[in-house]
Formats: sequence, C-alpha cells, structure tokens
Amino acid sequence: MFYHVKELQYNAKPSQPDPVYAKKLQEILGGQYGEMSVMMQYLFQGWNCRAEGKYRDMILDIATEEIAHVEMIATMIAQLLDGAPAHDQEQGAKDPAVEAVLGGMNPQQAIVSGLGAQPNDSIGYPWTARYTIASGNLLADFRANLNAESQGRLQVCRLYEMTTDPGVRDMLSFLIARDTMHQNQWMAAIEELEETQGAVVPSTFNQKYEKQEVSYSFMNFSEGEDSSTGKWAYGPTLDGQANFEYVQNPKAMGQKPDLQPGPRYIHGTSP
Amino acid sequence: MFYHVKELQYNAKPSQPDPVYAKKLQEILGGQYGEMSVMMQYLFQGWNCRAEGKYRDMILDIATEEIAHVEMIATMIAQLLDGAPAHDQEQGAKDPAVEAVLGGMNPQQAIVSGLGAQPNDSIGYPWTARYTIASGNLLADFRANLNAESQGRLQVCRLYEMTTDPGVRDMLSFLIARDTMHQNQWMAAIEELEETQGAVVPSTFNQKYEKQEVSYSFMNFSEGEDSSTGKWAYGPTLDGQANFEYVQNPKAMGQKPDLQPGPRYIHGTSP
Amino acid sequence: MFYHVKELQYNAKPSQPDPVYAKKLQEILGGQYGEMSVMMQYLFQGWNCRAEGKYRDMILDIATEEIAHVEMIATMIAQLLDGAPAHDQEQGAKDPAVEAVLGGMNPQQAIVSGLGAQPNDSIGYPWTARYTIASGNLLADFRANLNAESQGRLQVCRLYEMTTDPGVRDMLSFLIARDTMHQNQWMAAIEELEETQGAVVPSTFNQKYEKQEVSYSFMNFSEGEDSSTGKWAYGPTLDGQANFEYVQNPKAMGQKPDLQPGPRYIHGTSP
Amino acid sequence: MFYHVKELQYNAKPSQPDPVYAKKLQEILGGQYGEMSVMMQYLFQGWNCRAEGKYRDMILDIATEEIAHVEMIATMIAQLLDGAPAHDQEQGAKDPAVEAVLGGMNPQQAIVSGLGAQPNDSIGYPWTARYTIASGNLLADFRANLNAESQGRLQVCRLYEMTTDPGVRDMLSFLIARDTMHQNQWMAAIEELEETQGAVVPSTFNQKYEKQEVSYSFMNFSEGEDSSTGKWAYGPTLDGQANFEYVQNPKAMGQKPDLQPGPRYIHGTSP
Amino acid sequence: MFYHVKELQYNAKPSQPDPVYAKKLQEILGGQYGEMSVMMQYLFQGWNCRAEGKYRDMILDIATEEIAHVEMIATMIAQLLDGAPAHDQEQGAKDPAVEAVLGGMNPQQAIVSGLGAQPNDSIGYPWTARYTIASGNLLADFRANLNAESQGRLQVCRLYEMTTDPGVRDMLSFLIARDTMHQNQWMAAIEELEETQGAVVPSTFNQKYEKQEVSYSFMNFSEGEDSSTGKWAYGPTLDGQANFEYVQNPKAMGQKPDLQPGPRYIHGTSP
Amino acid sequence: MFYHVKELQYNAKPSQPDPVYAKKLQEILGGQYGEMSVMMQYLFQGWNCRAEGKYRDMILDIATEEIAHVEMIATMIAQLLDGAPAHDQEQGAKDPAVEAVLGGMNPQQAIVSGLGAQPNDSIGYPWTARYTIASGNLLADFRANLNAESQGRLQVCRLYEMTTDPGVRDMLSFLIARDTMHQNQWMAAIEELEETQGAVVPSTFNQKYEKQEVSYSFMNFSEGEDSSTGKWAYGPTLDGQANFEYVQNPKAMGQKPDLQPGPRYIHGTSP
Repeated sequence: MFYHVKELQYNAKPSQPDPVYAKKLQEILGGQYGEMSVMMQYLFQGWNCRAEGKYRDMILDIATEEIAHVEMIATMIAQLLDGAPAHDQEQGAKDPAVEAVLGGMNPQQAIVSGLGAQPNDSIGYPWTARYTIASGNLLADFRANLNAESQGRLQVCRLYEMTTDPGVRDMLSFLIARDTMHQNQWMAAIEELEETQGAVVPSTFNQKYEKQEVSYSFMNFSEGEDSSTGKWAYGPTLDGQANFEYVQNPKAMGQKPDLQPGPRYIHGTSP
Repeated sequence: MFYHVKELQYNAKPSQPDPVYAKKLQEILGGQYGEMSVMMQYLFQGWNCRAEGKYRDMILDIATEEIAHVEMIATMIAQLLDGAPAHDQEQGAKDPAVEAVLGGMNPQQAIVSGLGAQPNDSIGYPWTARYTIASGNLLADFRANLNAESQGRLQVCRLYEMTTDPGVRDMLSFLIARDTMHQNQWMAAIEELEETQGAVVPSTFNQKYEKQEVSYSFMNFSEGEDSSTGKWAYGPTLDGQANFEYVQNPKAMGQKPDLQPGPRYIHGTSP
Repeated sequence: MFYHVKELQYNAKPSQPDPVYAKKLQEILGGQYGEMSVMMQYLFQGWNCRAEGKYRDMILDIATEEIAHVEMIATMIAQLLDGAPAHDQEQGAKDPAVEAVLGGMNPQQAIVSGLGAQPNDSIGYPWTARYTIASGNLLADFRANLNAESQGRLQVCRLYEMTTDPGVRDMLSFLIARDTMHQNQWMAAIEELEETQGAVVPSTFNQKYEKQEVSYSFMNFSEGEDSSTGKWAYGPTLDGQANFEYVQNPKAMGQKPDLQPGPRYIHGTSP
Repeated sequence: MFYHVKELQYNAKPSQPDPVYAKKLQEILGGQYGEMSVMMQYLFQGWNCRAEGKYRDMILDIATEEIAHVEMIATMIAQLLDGAPAHDQEQGAKDPAVEAVLGGMNPQQAIVSGLGAQPNDSIGYPWTARYTIASGNLLADFRANLNAESQGRLQVCRLYEMTTDPGVRDMLSFLIARDTMHQNQWMAAIEELEETQGAVVPSTFNQKYEKQEVSYSFMNFSEGEDSSTGKWAYGPTLDGQANFEYVQNPKAMGQKPDLQPGPRYIHGTSP
Repeated sequence: MFYHVKELQYNAKPSQPDPVYAKKLQEILGGQYGEMSVMMQYLFQGWNCRAEGKYRDMILDIATEEIAHVEMIATMIAQLLDGAPAHDQEQGAKDPAVEAVLGGMNPQQAIVSGLGAQPNDSIGYPWTARYTIASGNLLADFRANLNAESQGRLQVCRLYEMTTDPGVRDMLSFLIARDTMHQNQWMAAIEELEETQGAVVPSTFNQKYEKQEVSYSFMNFSEGEDSSTGKWAYGPTLDGQANFEYVQNPKAMGQKPDLQPGPRYIHGTSP
Repeated sequence: MFYHVKELQYNAKPSQPDPVYAKKLQEILGGQYGEMSVMMQYLFQGWNCRAEGKYRDMILDIATEEIAHVEMIATMIAQLLDGAPAHDQEQGAKDPAVEAVLGGMNPQQAIVSGLGAQPNDSIGYPWTARYTIASGNLLADFRANLNAESQGRLQVCRLYEMTTDPGVRDMLSFLIARDTMHQNQWMAAIEELEETQGAVVPSTFNQKYEKQEVSYSFMNFSEGEDSSTGKWAYGPTLDGQANFEYVQNPKAMGQKPDLQPGPRYIHGTSP
C-alpha cells in the first residue's frame, strides 16, 4: 500500500516556459528508458519477488522513489507549457517566426492534454509495458536495471546539454545524481549475487546439457580480423570456466533445410 | 553487405511435429528477448558505431551470427507445425481430445502463416523495434546486450525444460551454449571499457554538475529496514568514488506544486 | 448494409492550403478521441447489441453519421495539403523560412500518403482498436460514449482556436454543434437507463457479495484533508444507498506478501 | 513523493494455484480498463491539475489507492501461478489432460516472467499509455473516470463469476466494493462541476460559434424509426437549452468533393 | 455521407454456438488482412483520390460493401458466442473437458466484450491503421488491394476448412465469392492503368535519374544457382525495357563505412 | 547462415550533414514499406518456403540483398546527423533560426540514439512485424512483394525530390534502380505462377463451394454510375472464367440481425 506526500522529492521549477523543450523532456518521462519504465519495472520485480526479503524491500524502496521522479518531471513539463501556444480566436498568431518555433512543439500537448504532461516519449509515442522485464531471476533483472539506469543517465545528460534554463538544470542535476547512485546500487547487488551464484544466467541450468564445444568460442563472421583484438577473443572467460577461443572461419554445422509440403487444406504452394 | 549460406549454423530437426510447442518457441524468435531483438540491436549498434574499428567489427560479427539463429528457430517452428491442424473439409476433427490439444495452438500459425514461423512472440504479439537500443555509448549498450543475453538464455533454458523432444533439445543446447559465450563476451567487453572510462555511464559528464549530496545515498521509502543489509547500503561504492549512505527517513526536498491556470483558449478547468 | 452518398454531410472547404494545420487536424480524425474512434465504437456497440431494438437502431444511426464525419475531415485534410511541400527536383526549396515552416509538417503526409489524409493522429500515431469499447452493458458503454463526445468536442474547440481560416472554422462549427447534440443524446440515454437499472454498473450483481463496509468510504491517502471538502466526501451517495464516509487515515487490511519459492525448472532466484 | 507500506490494502490469498485463472485475472491488472489504467490516469490528472486544490488532492488520493490495487492483483497472480506448469527435465508432462488444461495458461507467465504477474492484459497484450486521458478539463476527465470505473467493475464482476475459489472471491469482493465507491465518487464530482459549469464540455466555448441549427437534432440515418422512441429524440435536452428534434430523412448539406491534382513531384495518379 | 440498411448483405446464422471458432473467425474481421483493413484502406483511398472520377466512385463502392462484410462477421461472432462460457456463480464449471475446450476461447470475448465481436484478430491483437495504405498512386495502391484480397481469400478458405457448421460455411462461401470478384476487379483495374502508365511504379519518375546498370540485374547472394532458373533471371523484363541479367557473384560497390566521432555533448563512445 | 562483407553494396556518402533530412530518410529504413519490411518479409518467406527449391533460393537471395540496403541507409543517416544539434553546455543555441530548423529534427536521434539511425519511420514510429506477411502461398505473397516494391520505389522517388544533395541522390538512384528490378522480378515470378495455378488465390479451393452467383458482380453501392465505365464492370474477367456483371442497385440478401439475450452471469443489458 502507498501514501502520498504533497511536496516533490526535489525542486521542479523552470525559469520560464519552453514548449519545445517540454516536448523533448517527455523522453525521460514516458520513453523506453524514462522514469515510468523504471518505476513499473521495479514495482513488478518487487511484487513478484520470491527471493530473500531484503531484495524485495530494496527493490520496492527504489520503485517508490521512481514514482516521485515521474511526478517531478510531469510537474516540470506542465510548467514549461504554461501559456503555450499563443494562438487565440480573436488574434491568430500570424508571426511566421512564432509559427516556426511552435512547429517544434508537440501538438498533442495542446490539443489532447491541454498543456499537461503525457505518458509518452519525446515524439509522442505512448509508453508501453513491453519496455519492462521482471523475469523472476534477480541476476538477469538487475542487469536489466543497470542497463536502464545507464541509458537513463545518458539521456538526462544529453537533455542537460540542450537547455540553459537554471531551474531545469537544477532538477536534472538531481536526477543525474540519483542515476549515479542507482548504477552503483545495481552494480553492488549484481556483485553480491554473482559471488554466490556465478556469472552466467541462469546458474541453475546444468552446463552438461549445453553444447559445450561452442560455449566459449568467438566466431568471426566477416573477412577481416579486427574483432580478434578485444578481451572477448582470448584469455580467460569472465565466468572463470575456460579460455576464449577465436574461430577465424566458422562453418555451418547444420542441415540444408528441406521442408515437407503442407497439407492440402492449408492451400499453400507445394513443390 | 551480406552473403547467405544454404546450410544452417546448427541442426534444427525436431523428432516429431508439436504445434503447441511451436507456439511457445516463438518467444525466443520474435519476443522481447528473442533472437530478432539481438539481431536487430547488434546490427544497428554496429552500423551506428563511431568508436574504434575492433568494436564495430566485433558487434557486426555477432549480429551476423544472430541472423543465423533466427533462421534456425524459424526452420524448427515450420517443422513442428508439419501437418497441423488435422482438420479438413470432408472430416472435421471431432475428437474432443484433439480439439483440446489444438486449443493450445496459435490459430494464426494456420490461418495467417500457413504452418510457418512468424516474427511474433509466444502469444502472437508482433516484434517491435522498441525492443532494441543503440545509443552511441558502447558501455551503456554492452550492458543492454549483457541483459539481453541473460534474459535470452534464461528463456531458452525454460523452454528446454518444457520439451523432451531430443531434436528440439539438441538445437536448444546449441543456443544455450552460444548464450554462455555471449554473456562472457559482453562481460569481457564491459570490463575493457570500464577500465578506461570508469563505471558510471556516461563517464564524460562532469560530476560537478550533478547534485552530489545525493549521488551515493540509498533512500528507504518504507517503514522497515531489511533493505539496509545489502551491499548497496554500506561500504565503498562500485565506482570507487565514495561510500554508500543509508537514509532511513528520506524527506521531500522540493516544492508543493501549484500550477498556473491555463490560458482561456485551452478550455481547461481553472480555479 | 450501407449505401454511400457522394455529397458530404456538411461543407469541408478550406480557404487555402495549410500543411502544418493539416497535421494538427489529424488528431480529430485518427486520434484517441477522433471520429474514427466513435465511428468504430458505435458500429461495434450496435452490431453486438442484445438489448431492445430502439437502442440498436439509435446506436447505428449515430455510427453511420460518424462515418460521414471521418469523410469530411479526410477531405478537408487533403485540401489543406494541396501543393505541399514546395520542393522539386529542379529547384530544391532553399529558403530557410519555408524550410522552417515545413519543418512543422508531417513528412509522412508527403512521403507515404502523397498529400492525403491518414488514419493517424496529430503526431502520426496510427489509430488502434484499443481506443474503443463495446462491453455488452449499455449503461457502461453510454458513459464511454459521453466521455468520447466530451473529449472530442474539447479537442475540436481547441483546434478551432488554432486557425483563422473561415472555411476550416465553418466545418469545425458543424462538428462542435453535432458534439453538443451527441453529449445531450448520451446524457438522455444514460438517464433513461439509470431510472430502470440504478446508477452503479453492473446493477445485476448482488451487492451482498461485495465487501460492503468499504462501498461508500473516501480514503485519504495523503497527509492533508483538502479532499474532504467535495461532494464525494459527505452527504448521500449518488446511488441513493448510503452516505459517504471520509476515512482520514486508511490502514492496510491485508497480509504482508510472502511468496513461495518457484519450482527448480523455472530457474528463478529463490531464498 | 510516495511512501510504501509493506502490507497489502486488503487480503490477496487464493485457496489454491490456478494458472488458467491467473491468465484471465491479468485483464483487470494490465487491460484497457484494468487497475494500471486508472492508476496512471489519475496520477497524470492529478499532476497536471490547474484547478482548485481540493480536486488535485482528491484525484491523487484515489490515484494512490489504485497503486495498491495493482499490488494486490499482482500478488494474487503470482500465487495463482505457484508451481505451474508441472513440466520438468526428468519427467515431461505426458498426461494429455494436464497438457490440455495447461494449454489455457499464458506461456509467457512461465517463459518470460517466471511465474510472476505481468503488466499485460488477459491475452498478453501489453499495457499502453493510450488507455489513459488527462485533458486539463476536469468535467471531461471525470466522465472518463466514471466510464473507467463502470467498465472496471463490470469486468471484476464477470471474473467473480468465473471462479469459485473463496480467497480469490474475497479479494474481488473488496475491489467490487471500491468500484461502487469510485463510481459514486465520480458521479458526485461530476454533479458538482455541472452545477457551476453546465453540462456540455467545454462550457467555455461560446455556443454562438457553433452551427446551432444542428445542435439538438437526432438524425435518423436508416430506413426504420425505432430510434425515435428514446429520450434522445424528443423533449427537453439535458443541458436545458432546447428540445430534441428528430430528423427523419437527413440530407447532405456539403459539397461533392473534387480534389485538385497533386504536384508532379509527388508522383501520384492525376486525372 | 452514408445510410444504413438494417438487413445484412448476406446470411450470417450459425447452426450452433462455438466460442472457440468465434476466436478464430476474428482473424478475418480485425486481422492484418481482415475486412476492417480493406474497409478502411478503400475508404481512405477513395477520399484521397485525385484521379478521374470513375476511380473514386469505384473505390468507394467497394469500400461501402466492405463495411457490410465487417457487419456480417461481427454478427456471426456474437451468435457463435451465445451462452458461453457456461460458468456461473452457483455452479462453477468443473468438468475438465469443458474447461479444456473453453481454454481455447478468447477470455476477452467474455470479460471485455460480454460475448460480442471485437475489432481484433484471432489472437486478440487490436486492429491498427498501419495495416492500410493510401499512397495517392493508384497503380501502387491497386497492387496493395490485389494482395489484400489474395491474402484475405486465402484466410477465409482456411477458416472454411476448419468448420463443418453449415451456417458458417454458407456465409464464408459468400465472402469467398466476393473475394473472387475483388481479385478480378483489381486485376482489371491494374491492367487498365498499366496500359496507359507502364508497369513500373511510379511511371512519372524519369529513369535516367536511376542507376541504370543495375535496373535489370538479378543478384545471386548465395553459393548455389537454383535461383537462375526462374523467369526473373533471363529473357525480357516485364516492363518491356530490357532483358534480365543474372549476376553470379555480386560484389560490393560502396565504401567501407567510417563514421566521424560524435560531438562531445552527445556523450557517445569515440575512438 | 550468413557472412558479412565490410564494404557497402553501394555508396552511401552525403555531401553534408542534414539532420532534418535524416529524419525523413528514416521512412525507407524503418517505415511500413521501408527496407526493414522487405528484408524481414523475404527472410520469413524464404525460411518458411515449402515449394520448389528455386523459389526458396530466389527469395533468400533478394532477402540477403535487402539487409545490405538497410545497412546503406543506416550508414547514410548516421552521416547526415554528424554534429547535430549544435547545442552545448557552455553556449546554448540561442539563434531562433537555428532553433527553428532544428525543430524539424527528430529529438530521439539526439537523445536516444546519439546521432545514429533508428529502426523507426520518419515520424519515429517503431518498425513492427505486422508490416510483413509470409502466408505459405507464394502467389499471394509475391503480390504482397510487388506491392511492397511499388510503394517502396514511390517513396524513394519522393525522397529524391526532397533533396539536392548529390551524395544522397547517388545512393537513392541505386535504390530506385534496384526497385525497378525488384518490381520486374516479382511480376515475372507472378506470371510464372499464374500460368500454372490460375489467377485467383488460392487456386486449390474448389469454386463449387463458393456462392457463384456473386463471384463476378460489381455492386454499385452509391447513387451515380461512374463506376460502370472501368474494365472491372464489363467484359471478360481476368481469370478467364466469366464476364463481369454490373449490379446497379444491390439489395440486402441476409437477415435482420436479432441477437439472443446474454446469460445472466455476463451482466450485459438484455431486452
């Protein structure tokens, strides 16, 4: 169950409206790696958690924080949209320059949401649950989370570069700092799990059932060999089980496919 | 540019048809973490790569392999569907047991694709490009890739458990082994990049611009404190810059939002 | 079955082309609350109707009108796009101002539809059937319809404010008037149904099976009590069965979740 | 900002696992009218609210409650999935009856989420933000909310009929009761707004700009006249401004469309 | 503008309910190549038509017929769902065989649409406008239409094979016949256009601007040469301009890509 | 299985960056009729092919070429984005003209993909597998392919007209030429199949089961008769089986629908 506190987790006050930037900022609200994604991903990972209690608690603590991040960004966007666009019935905006700038605004933020934030990304594509994962395997999921926080911080930094508004930058500096923490948090949790479970997900599948002769081979599917010079091509593997092998000319090991004709009632094309 | 080889990378021959399993197997072909996702993700990461040549080469080598994995699974699915469903014009299937089993088949694999594989997942949802990321930042993207190979191997292992067909298991054992390699590969590449760039993405954003007082704080947004007992709550942070701090009762640091009325021509509800 | 009349239900003639406005106008054609949504929603409600004949007839009458509204708006959009964009092979548009204005145009209206209307909204997102509902319960659905006509009229009014073209405004004034009628129509139909069925949907579920101690309680999930001052917090309830109760500090009534470990073959993380 | 309480708002304990029912129950979690929809709809309506403070507070109180409903249903689903499916590596399920029943299970709840709830509906379609609306006009939005609670309660009642598990029914009886309250709540809020603003949304658009001769006409677009016998066809209109008029044979009032040829560089088909 | 006729274009009366078949039949209602697709595709092609009047008229005649086809199938589905599923509060269905068969039913047809048709396909995926095209070039679009009627008739024939219900087959036999006509219709219209415009779309683009040395070459991107034995590999081309050329070993003609580093403020990975 | 060649199939070098054009060019990469669509459509048609070996080989040859086309366009887009947008932390772009032009850029190409191509179309909508078809019936599918190459060439020609950059036009002239070939290729393959199978898909369905009295009738669902003057309305049908018949006033041949009340436990509205 949840309680709401009326104050925001941190300041969300722009120095002035900027409807074009309001459109861009939607990316970190409702985009693939926006705050809605981590909020919903962590909530479901927490609710589905069958592991030790400290994991469930930790995941739901950060999930709860992410709801507050969505709230901050939504509040910021509504203020960036204040008073836009400056068209009205008596005096249609006729200044081509104003028109041009407003051309960069998302029209739905006026027509649909009436100058409010939307659960969409920077091109207006709606948030979808397929952005999230809760697999029941925490090591897999924590890697998903580390990726989400990495992509997320990258996007917030890019948005920081695209504005000079001190109020907007103040809020973004908070989100960037929290993403620093959250990257560290998931790295720490991953380290803890890898120590007990091993590095390959899932660790509970017996490796004798996998085709072990190709478990550690880098296959070079192109004519040059630049790809042989990275850590993935020689030396000990990261799971500590073997050494990488570089296969210069990988060959097909399977059959040439030859499908049977379909039955008559399928009305396909048969030989 | 690409060339095609008519043989498969590895065997894809089921012992017998199984249309219900054909439906499930679609998950690792066209699902969120199926082979189409890694194929397209790696292709775009390679094509967009602005880094050292060895990274581009390595990414495109594995991308090219993934096309072959899609091919193997598609070929397998077509064979699992051989001869299904056993309905025809003269003699409709009337055996309730047959009906029941076929109830578990995906009807589109008969009606739409005529007993062929589809670029969809196990519930028939079509593959979408929003499953992929190519951000231009390789450390971020390699974390995405490590996650994709972790979720992917997990799903293939679960599918391995759901069948006893030796031919299907043979193919899956190959895919599981390659996922072992690919997890190791991305871990190695991540280690290489972290050594030169640092662990927090993006490393090129100057941390003095972030709100540093909250960069390493775990915030406990619930009444209990189980979450204080993991590695994310105390001790040195993984980026080597600080120690984790546990905040027992995080407080709101921002304003109580108070939005201005919208302009008249928006026709919203104002105070 | 349907017949087509070649004339439009009402005028759809712009005074001049305006490709940027053509993009915005797509919202009320193929958007969440555009004419395609009410057209398809009413058609399916009518076709699925198991109630008295007058309801089926009324619903299909309005559905048939809505097809004509889609036709009018599509015709208007095609004309707003006349002659845009002014690029051609011999003389590429080089005037930055023209470029800037055209930057606000939807590129698909040139590249994909060749200066024609699209079944999409103002940001180009395609219409989807998930915008509609036909539940088999008319009181529920008429509430959906009243909402659709309310959101729809609101959006048309906003679009009316964004243009000064007399031809466009003439068409919009017709659509706004019809939405006035349609809001009244659904309010009348709702009133008629509520009189015989009661106000809570579905009225046929015996209330003794619901947890009646919380059927009329407003729960205050935040620290302040502004929410206690509206009609939803005191006085008789709208279904005439009780009085609203204001719960100042709602408490959790359920268990602390404690999930069982998953089976081994699922390869999740267990305690 | 938000805080999490570890206990659920109400009991969510099934008497026994039922993976087929777990699939169906997803509808009210991640479906078009599931709890995720009202949760996100109310959150955005609250965050974007530019009206009187009591509305914002009320909306966010109910939004916060809805997060707890998602939590309850997710927890229930995870338990309904306990131990399913009963396949494993040593002993594949071979009993056709078991196979048949499991054919009704959603395969992603095993393969993807490892026996956890998903942010999807009962056929596995992912939740999308296009299910929600926050328009900035509260009367419009409260009608959306009343519809959502009507469709929602209808679906929960249908699901109640589809199970006999006392634990599941106990939880559903709570959700049904809360939906009774929430329908009453939005009806009360609508009544309050209509009293001050009038019944037609948006009330701030001057009706002199609409085509008033068709503002109150029911148009009969079919040959019979059953549709003339409802309250929408005669008597005073619900906004109190006029009487309904029944138009037996509505005629086209607009032009026969005649589009100009497109420019040469569009390469369309011209006359 | 449109008028509705209360009778269906043709019979739509099943001999008995069959909820599992009702699910499958959705494919030709709301699937990629269902009747909704041709209905919307033809409506938009007609409304956007800038060519000779006879084309617009013809396209809208067939579009209007397609609305009636959607109506027939929707009516059929509602009747196939009559009385399903046989669960109720007093007596839950406990017969495993009944359960098993019902496992093949789409749960949304009970929970969401209350035994009514849905604008979705046979796996419940919602119809989307991206299934349609209206490009402004009639030759291109008539090829799209010929494809749609080919895929459509194929799917109806497959569904015909999956039932023995005489009432269902009666309706399908009508739809199959109309698809025979519609394939012939589009072939005739294509022949007419090709005679005046030539066979390659768009015919108005001057071929001197294309890279003519590869305009008629079949490129063999694999090791074997089976592909050299079809009509596409030798002899005169279908546009009458040249002869096909078979290129046994196509070579790369372009550069090895070498992208510039991104700017600093993008925070990507640079060499 | 596949091999990668590091050189592009043809040149992809723009004369200068142009981020606004980069957005538009996405249409033929990840749009409905972009290169990703034909690549995936042909791959699945080839992998699912149950017909003569030469068809499978031919389809996979062209599929393999299409991967190279995606590669060329992706490479072009990355270069068109070089150095955009010109914002940075020290000196925010303040020039309104620059702002205006950049308003036409897709913000995700900076924020999400860091100046790289995306698997999306020109408005940023992600590529979806529902753009493709592989039905198992080659005549149907080759018609789909002919349509795809027709729409594709049309779009590339339109994009050619929208730029004057010689490098971009060079690449497009190659793609246009290949689309000339591919239209000819599918026309040749269609001719070959029609000669042996007949023109109506599927040819294996016995026409005696279709409602033959309407198999060749054009139905005029509107008041005028312009539609009677095309080749689809008189003379021999294209399948050589009959003559077209023109039905001036098509009448309803089916029942007036009258649905039964739903069962009580569905809680719908009954008569």
